[in-house]
Amino acid sequence: MQGELGSNSALAAAAHFQEERISIQPCPTFNELFEAVEKGQAHYGMAPVENSLAGSIHAVWDLLALYKPAIVGEIYYHVRHCLIGHPGARLEDIRYVYSHPQALAQCGAFLLELENLDPNNIVEEYDTAGAVGIIRQTYKKEQAAIASSAAAELHQMKVLATDIQTHERNYTRFLVLGQRPATTAPNKTVLVCTLDHTAANLPQILAALSSRDIPLYKAETRKLEDDPWAYLLYLECQGDAANAPLAAALAAIKDAVRDLSLVASYPAAPLLP
Amino acid sequence: MQGELGSNSALAAAAHFQEERISIQPCPTFNELFEAVEKGQAHYGMAPVENSLAGSIHAVWDLLALYKPAIVGEIYYHVRHCLIGHPGARLEDIRYVYSHPQALAQCGAFLLELENLDPNNIVEEYDTAGAVGIIRQTYKKEQAAIASSAAAELHQMKVLATDIQTHERNYTRFLVLGQRPATTAPNKTVLVCTLDHTAANLPQILAALSSRDIPLYKAETRKLEDDPWAYLLYLECQGDAANAPLAAALAAIKDAVRDLSLVASYPAAPLLP
Repeated sequence: MQGELGSNSALAAAAHFQEERISIQPCPTFNELFEAVEKGQAHYGMAPVENSLAGSIHAVWDLLALYKPAIVGEIYYHVRHCLIGHPGARLEDIRYVYSHPQALAQCGAFLLELENLDPNNIVEEYDTAGAVGIIRQTYKKEQAAIASSAAAELHQMKVLATDIQTHERNYTRFLVLGQRPATTAPNKTVLVCTLDHTAANLPQILAALSSRDIPLYKAETRKLEDDPWAYLLYLECQGDAANAPLAAALAAIKDAVRDLSLVASYPAAPLLP
Repeated sequence: MQGELGSNSALAAAAHFQEERISIQPCPTFNELFEAVEKGQAHYGMAPVENSLAGSIHAVWDLLALYKPAIVGEIYYHVRHCLIGHPGARLEDIRYVYSHPQALAQCGAFLLELENLDPNNIVEEYDTAGAVGIIRQTYKKEQAAIASSAAAELHQMKVLATDIQTHERNYTRFLVLGQRPATTAPNKTVLVCTLDHTAANLPQILAALSSRDIPLYKAETRKLEDDPWAYLLYLECQGDAANAPLAAALAAIKDAVRDLSLVASYPAAPLLP
């Protein structure tokens, strides 16, 4: 997984594989995550595809389209942020806060209320759990990090406040990458299309699914930078690409797009939380 | 318009109002642009909504949904970037380049080939024409800016290279905001919808248009940050919202979305270049 031990990716992996014993192999970048699974250096990979508040993680979608990995499942991981400080610190000591930009943004309202924190002292780091490691090494009790309670435990630091995120419905959806398709039957399919234009063929593409009564779970457009007027379309829908009616729908979609990357079919998580 | 004299917004205004005499009133921010038109401090406003390479300018779409201004027309403005230096400078003197981040990105290939330019010396400024003004004041012949040839003329600086953009099909589409609707009949309508979810109702929304044979010109989704799973949908389609069949389609769309901001109907430019 991408990120350090105690990061949300690691916690999501533990939640997904709860009955199995797993060993976590941190990857510095998403690229290395996909590479590790493709080369067999990892059995599974946790690929965060979207967050309920911040949206799709475009770098991961680019890698899905590029590597077309096998996907064995998905999980909606409930993100719960804590403010973490040194064992002797109290909330009123905190003058500096470090974390991943997304975590900082998701706790903006809480940080605004911290009386001794100057907004200029809110510092972006590459990883939530990594930020805890950084403040631990400086031994300054005015420094705190935003991360999971597991990261606090791992680094033997103190949780100063829990559930400091603004929104309770803060979920990150992970696709679980694998060496080969899941043994349970796939019932959800993910693909990435390249469109010459944002709108011209979109009704036709979606009608290829809705005319066959195939439920649509995701349909998101994103500008393909540096390519005149072209867009990417992320699609997720019900069914297995190998079987009818989805196989027929995909053939129809292929005719309406510049390029279609069929990523994988996989067993879906039951519910959108 | 937003930006300074000699900026692409100013050039687009000149191109749109070519037979009329206009006086340009620069606005530092998009907010002030919309405000100036709403309060009658400007007769018209040039609102850049998208670029063929970089995509939609989301801040402008937010303001369209908020202000719902009258729109009197649109223009596809062909963006042509120049490298601009001091009168005595030559291309090989250039060690620093200043411009708007989008202009810098659109000329990346050219900058990479400039032999004495260190990539660390490529500096972001708020405006293309403004960057020319900045380097003029420092009188250093190793400094250059990327902007239009009109900006070079305005500041009495020298064009060192023309058409340095990577892609020839580099167009910015502007909507021309006005005090009241155009006198020519509107044939294109722009709206912004809020969706509780990226995909659930999208086929139904688009079918409300396609089932009535209404051509779709733009359909782009964008995450509504900080709102669980919610998305915005930018829509542009043929027709006048006041008349059938579009009026009926909009009523059907209204039932499928959380919120619908009908921005305006306006006379479209003829072609997507």
